[in-house]
Amino acid sequence: MTRLRIALAQVNSTVGDLAGNAATVAEWTRRAADAGADLVVFPEMMLTGYPVEDLALRESFVQASMATLESVAQQLEADGLGGIAVVTGYLGRRAGGTPRAGEPVSSAQNAAALLHGGTVAVTTAKHHLPNYGVFDEYRYFVPGNRLPVVRVPVGAGSPDGGAVDVAIAICEDLWQDGGPVAVTRQAGAGLLVVPNASPYERGKDQARLELCARRAREAGAALAYVNTIGGQDELVFDGDSIVVDAEGGLITRGPQFEETLLVADLDLPAARPVPGSDPPADTPAEASDGTVMTIHRVALPSRPAGSAGSATPAPPLPEPAISPRLAPRAEIYSALVTGLRDYVRKNGFRSVILGLSGGIDSALVATIAADALGPDQVHVVLMPSRYSSGHSVSDAEDLAKRQGLHARTIPVAPMVDAFEGGLHLEGLAAENLQSRIRGVILMGLSNAEGHLVLTTGNKSEIATGYSTLYGDSAGGFGPVKDVLKTLVWELARWRNAQAVERGETPPIPENSITKPPSAELAPGQLDTDSLPDYAVLDAVLDDYVEKDMGAAELVGAGHDPDLVDRVIQLVDRAEYKRRQYPPGPKITPRNFGRDRRLPITNRWREPRPGRRPA
Amino acid sequence: MTRLRIALAQVNSTVGDLAGNAATVAEWTRRAADAGADLVVFPEMMLTGYPVEDLALRESFVQASMATLESVAQQLEADGLGGIAVVTGYLGRRAGGTPRAGEPVSSAQNAAALLHGGTVAVTTAKHHLPNYGVFDEYRYFVPGNRLPVVRVPVGAGSPDGGAVDVAIAICEDLWQDGGPVAVTRQAGAGLLVVPNASPYERGKDQARLELCARRAREAGAALAYVNTIGGQDELVFDGDSIVVDAEGGLITRGPQFEETLLVADLDLPAARPVPGSDPPADTPAEASDGTVMTIHRVALPSRPAGSAGSATPAPPLPEPAISPRLAPRAEIYSALVTGLRDYVRKNGFRSVILGLSGGIDSALVATIAADALGPDQVHVVLMPSRYSSGHSVSDAEDLAKRQGLHARTIPVAPMVDAFEGGLHLEGLAAENLQSRIRGVILMGLSNAEGHLVLTTGNKSEIATGYSTLYGDSAGGFGPVKDVLKTLVWELARWRNAQAVERGETPPIPENSITKPPSAELAPGQLDTDSLPDYAVLDAVLDDYVEKDMGAAELVGAGHDPDLVDRVIQLVDRAEYKRRQYPPGPKITPRNFGRDRRLPITNRWREPRPGRRPA
Repeated sequence: MTRLRIALAQVNSTVGDLAGNAATVAEWTRRAADAGADLVVFPEMMLTGYPVEDLALRESFVQASMATLESVAQQLEADGLGGIAVVTGYLGRRAGGTPRAGEPVSSAQNAAALLHGGTVAVTTAKHHLPNYGVFDEYRYFVPGNRLPVVRVPVGAGSPDGGAVDVAIAICEDLWQDGGPVAVTRQAGAGLLVVPNASPYERGKDQARLELCARRAREAGAALAYVNTIGGQDELVFDGDSIVVDAEGGLITRGPQFEETLLVADLDLPAARPVPGSDPPADTPAEASDGTVMTIHRVALPSRPAGSAGSATPAPPLPEPAISPRLAPRAEIYSALVTGLRDYVRKNGFRSVILGLSGGIDSALVATIAADALGPDQVHVVLMPSRYSSGHSVSDAEDLAKRQGLHARTIPVAPMVDAFEGGLHLEGLAAENLQSRIRGVILMGLSNAEGHLVLTTGNKSEIATGYSTLYGDSAGGFGPVKDVLKTLVWELARWRNAQAVERGETPPIPENSITKPPSAELAPGQLDTDSLPDYAVLDAVLDDYVEKDMGAAELVGAGHDPDLVDRVIQLVDRAEYKRRQYPPGPKITPRNFGRDRRLPITNRWREPRPGRRPA
Repeated sequence: MTRLRIALAQVNSTVGDLAGNAATVAEWTRRAADAGADLVVFPEMMLTGYPVEDLALRESFVQASMATLESVAQQLEADGLGGIAVVTGYLGRRAGGTPRAGEPVSSAQNAAALLHGGTVAVTTAKHHLPNYGVFDEYRYFVPGNRLPVVRVPVGAGSPDGGAVDVAIAICEDLWQDGGPVAVTRQAGAGLLVVPNASPYERGKDQARLELCARRAREAGAALAYVNTIGGQDELVFDGDSIVVDAEGGLITRGPQFEETLLVADLDLPAARPVPGSDPPADTPAEASDGTVMTIHRVALPSRPAGSAGSATPAPPLPEPAISPRLAPRAEIYSALVTGLRDYVRKNGFRSVILGLSGGIDSALVATIAADALGPDQVHVVLMPSRYSSGHSVSDAEDLAKRQGLHARTIPVAPMVDAFEGGLHLEGLAAENLQSRIRGVILMGLSNAEGHLVLTTGNKSEIATGYSTLYGDSAGGFGPVKDVLKTLVWELARWRNAQAVERGETPPIPENSITKPPSAELAPGQLDTDSLPDYAVLDAVLDDYVEKDMGAAELVGAGHDPDLVDRVIQLVDRAEYKRRQYPPGPKITPRNFGRDRRLPITNRWREPRPGRRPA
């Protein structure tokens, strides 16, 4: 066996910021070298960020990504880091050949490279392209068909020197059967490294560990899974990087939603001696699913002693970390905080503003914002109307005081009067008017003071259209957009309990959690006047939206047939509102936005169970 | 030669309306039978409408589509129309087999069937799936790999009887090389019929005719191209159905944006006698591009004389129509009218409302709406502020009077005063406030009276972010969203000239066309205070947005480097506004929305020419 010291750089890249992302690679390679690593692995499309969407079709961007890759290799050598093998994702292009039918004309590829000694030693491209859910990779990328197997010399952590054969696959290559995993076994590689940009969904971490263990056994190799962290529009990446041995045993695991450098010593099979001097360059291989790929072998030159990144001998390594998993609510809450923080930061904002009603949704959003940005960056506006109850104002004031937020009060009565003088609206139109006036106030303050406006709508409201277009839905980011109302309550209780555990004041007034929900747009109004009880509603929404059940299936799952009809109708009719809703962090297997894409013009009505369709 | 009478049903289907679309098939098959046709061809995904987006992933919807296909076949037979061969598109599913890596788990297919004698005689599925621009078919469909060749008996138009071999391909199968077209030649079919749902883009009709002629020559067969018409969210389908002979010579061509039944007699090679009684069912074929497909042969039973749809002998056919093409501006204007009309109608609205400023954008949108829905369904609101010029009100009043629109005036001063009393906004924030107050007024009237709100922003404004979120961008549909400002003027002039030609009053006041454009949100404000001259701006937008040029290419194309920098920055920074903009009809090769999909969080800045990227 040969001992290789691997470092996994679980870092946060930013879409389009090639220079910034390149600097991150240089900085974290330095850290890996200081830790005595032979090999450091960065996430999928590290240099460009992920997903880049239609930037992948722009020639200038593809070229800039490839130029950045070359300059990073040179920079690392110039920094004395040329002796460490660096695997990083980037946006590449298939060399030569014209696109075949159905391939993007850009011939762009979701690529990874191994940098060493100031050069790009090898490149590869994702073989299995995901094209479901939030992914559209057939739109952008040509699949790769070559498994690189790189002979990486060890030294830092190994007393004897030697080398290990390291194969590289990318993200979806792990989730699909066959392909690179199977070919890795055939190639006899000792280690499979896998850069990822794998978005968070609740509960995904368990699936991920099981997958890594299974694929390691299939590949007959240790497996190093490196995921990015941070927010990008609707997506949040949770890290959770993993190394398992060839039997699937867990060696080290990173924390969720935090940048980290995971370092571990792996005892791997020594690279097999190959007759002749160098390993053969290209050999065809047929994987177990019939996929024909090429195995592309490259041997890195051994570096003279002391020329690896660190001039000092490698320090002995403590027991590799196995970070504990966050509990389910803590995990979701962390995703929301991360998603909001990065949307604000990466878009050049510093502060946010939102309307505080005294209800639970805005209370939770304000708390998430204060946790993400600090209370000094959170501005709340109380905008009471003639229908606002006394507790609305006092609960909102209480929350702002508990958390130290910037609060101000702007009564909407004068604006309502001015509109009613000109328009004479009644009923729903009058209710919406109040909500829209609040939207205008928040947008005005945003324009004047530079805060990002947060919307406070939850997934139950957005699903059923229980919101006002350009009113409470006005804003740049919706932190609880993918959180059902019942989960909003759970998260609020969890956050308060967490504060109590820490000996802090609970941030959310108990009354905001316990009082019956109301939009307070008409006298004595309650949500339950218009909607089913949230516990009942959310159960249907979960099955209809998340699981895509039809009406018959929903009834078969035990939901009341009339309720099913009503909920489906509400959800289907609100599509036009959702199209104009701002992005918010995805935490479920199917969010509104990138995941669930339905036409607005749509006369399909799920047939009532028992009736014939059409 | 054998004479086959073909009918092309260029009709308008509605997404999700299976019953309504099935009724359309029955009604137009009756018309085809009355015209003595042997074969009638409907568009791609006729029964479901196109595109159905994520409905394709819903099991209940796929099942309903397949059940509808069966019931249509039975209904046609019951209606005495079983003797005519009916080709129609629908949403199907690959029978048997499990999805392979990367295929949608629904195994749905973009399918077509030939109905005859009360049964589904044959089905097929699209071989080449488009997955670029507005298309996402890899997300939804499993490709087909079988070319059906159906021996269709003739009778109605032919004195001698006999039969013709008819192959079926679908839409993209025609746009990509190889595959079904090449296999059609190998199969020796006399006619290739191609159902389509091919969205309009300016100038596409010329490419389409050339394509049909070329593919007919490649297939060695006559070719019948049937396209749908009508609007579906952002897409507009323009019809323009075409029949060419095996040499590519044009036989008949349908009008643009109108439902029509095209009927033509085609003299085609008689179906080759096959040793034995029936043609062989399945034979493998390798197309010229290496694609291996199966040729699936089916022979329809001959029907007793007089049993075809029409009991009377087929009437002799006049010379087939070759509809004249619309001139470029007429074509675009028709697309906008069609897109708006269908969005309103298919979403259950009858009337629209919009703000009329006296400027050219709202003038053109009001005119399009009046042409689409009739002036009685168009409600306009004049909302003058303290900065509105005298001509703004008089030009708007003039337009409403010329066209007979419902007009009312609601001054915004009282609302502006009420907000300014509470908020003290200045500069851009104060300008946006006025625009948002107008949005609130329109939405209030929409909620109270049930009109769809139209936004009036043009593509130049939307590209550069020269609009107010929740202000002038508030609304359900944006008719000129994909129309650059210079084209707005051209269309207005064209529409006025057309009226003069017809001896009608020009609908748009000349002053609205000739005066310098202004948002009138500040004293003496002109668009050119904030933006380059529109002629210069639109030229850059066309190259940056439509052609996806990078900065260096733009400068190379002759644009001023500083202007290029400025325009790119404006466009890139406005992505968040565009995400919340309503849909509007696509008329260019790249609209904002389905076509051009960029991240909001995006630090990529095109490098200034001469500087190194990154």
